[in-house]
Amino acid sequence: MTRSSKARVNITQIREGHIKHKTKQDVVVTEEPLEIRLVAGNDTQQLAVTMRTPGADFELATGFLYSEGIIQSHEDITHISYCVDHDLSEDQRYNVVNVRLRQEQLPDLEHLQRHFFTTSACGVCGKSSIEALETRGLQPIMSNLTIPIQTVTQLPDKLRAAQPLFENTGGLHAVGLFDRHGDLITLREDVGRHNAMDKVVGWAVQQKRLPLSDMIVLVSGRASFELVQKALAVQIPIFCAVSAPSSLAVDLAHRFNMTLIGFLRRDNFNIYTSPYRIQTQ
Amino acid sequence: MTRSSKARVNITQIREGHIKHKTKQDVVVTEEPLEIRLVAGNDTQQLAVTMRTPGADFELATGFLYSEGIIQSHEDITHISYCVDHDLSEDQRYNVVNVRLRQEQLPDLEHLQRHFFTTSACGVCGKSSIEALETRGLQPIMSNLTIPIQTVTQLPDKLRAAQPLFENTGGLHAVGLFDRHGDLITLREDVGRHNAMDKVVGWAVQQKRLPLSDMIVLVSGRASFELVQKALAVQIPIFCAVSAPSSLAVDLAHRFNMTLIGFLRRDNFNIYTSPYRIQTQ
Repeated sequence: MTRSSKARVNITQIREGHIKHKTKQDVVVTEEPLEIRLVAGNDTQQLAVTMRTPGADFELATGFLYSEGIIQSHEDITHISYCVDHDLSEDQRYNVVNVRLRQEQLPDLEHLQRHFFTTSACGVCGKSSIEALETRGLQPIMSNLTIPIQTVTQLPDKLRAAQPLFENTGGLHAVGLFDRHGDLITLREDVGRHNAMDKVVGWAVQQKRLPLSDMIVLVSGRASFELVQKALAVQIPIFCAVSAPSSLAVDLAHRFNMTLIGFLRRDNFNIYTSPYRIQTQ
Repeated sequence: MTRSSKARVNITQIREGHIKHKTKQDVVVTEEPLEIRLVAGNDTQQLAVTMRTPGADFELATGFLYSEGIIQSHEDITHISYCVDHDLSEDQRYNVVNVRLRQEQLPDLEHLQRHFFTTSACGVCGKSSIEALETRGLQPIMSNLTIPIQTVTQLPDKLRAAQPLFENTGGLHAVGLFDRHGDLITLREDVGRHNAMDKVVGWAVQQKRLPLSDMIVLVSGRASFELVQKALAVQIPIFCAVSAPSSLAVDLAHRFNMTLIGFLRRDNFNIYTSPYRIQTQ
């Protein structure tokens, strides 16, 4: 059994500013961590954890090793398999790929180590990634904020109007922080969407504005596990994305009582979790 | 002097299937590595390197530390500054941020270490990132492939037509590999665009198709340093992106003689580097 590349969710569908379906089944793309382990002789080393869509996992591991310069041809690999450690659950086994190298010794990855950067992926399945955040002490969102549909639908135009750099280059992700009236409080742009979110979080920390329990955040792209996790860390109750959410973003928002909105375009959007914060009357 | 968030480039502009401007000045968003270092007592530790757009760097560092759970409030930080090591060039100093913690000892980051994954960022400025790839042995692209404008403009429709998962979920990045006639050879999708590219690279390695010197690649989003680097590792001569390239993607393609195309939509696109591979007669 390999993992499916899509997952079913229930959404509340808003069309032309009104509820079209209170509950409707929809599909989202699966996001799950994949751990790549190198094996040489009797040694094993964990090389990387990446958030990916299940499917073509062996290609992903092979391509990662090749494009990072760790292998020079397919002959450098003698075997690729999913992990069969007995201490892993069945779900987890399909999220760990072992790559056995022809050489007897693990390569020197010292030059790679300093170029690692963190992902929020903890553990090797989505469930454990979420549990790790609970262990770290992240709290469910306790906010009584509710806002009308019209506040939500106005956000994208306000974000775009305030994006001078995007106008010039077209090459940026934006994250905008709005108050309960839909007025823009701060906006940050970056080539990396996690960086744009970190800049907004950093602004809030520096300005002593935490927690952001009465705020709304809008991201110009998709809603991933990593972005939702960062917004959750500062207790933002309503997370809006112009594009699609991933399965793990939906699961995470659900678990921590965050309202997650996707495909926010003109007067249309989908509510994936905690719809009660959007006033529909 | 802090770094600018945009950079000037010269492009060849194709509109409605024909050259509109052979050389035109345009702007792209700046992409440069940022290294975040933690300082406590007399100790310093490199925490992360991320590819970012210069600007709000102290917010970025603060937000990263907060959302990853390394600090609990702004009071945990006593000082943030750019690095002033004398062994760094002036450019590099503005790509390294030192965060001094109130506590006297560096935090235990053991639990973070295993969740690091690699970026292709090497060194702490764009120039050194590119030089590191040369040191690693990456070769300039030696391909005599040339293709007509019409082959380029047909690619996005072909990619979209072959994206079943995107049709269902709207939540995916796609990378398509095409032959010189513009016929789709393989397509991979993923929530992470670097993963989609790694899957294509892995396919080529496993199928013993390297080098891909007569191939064209199309990515559904933007052209970053990381994506261009991965395509370069398999010697793809023509890299097309539906959206914008970053400054460092342009610099990298230029240095290694790759043809980089951006904003490929309908009959319009921009050529950023090595335009000679696109037949304009």
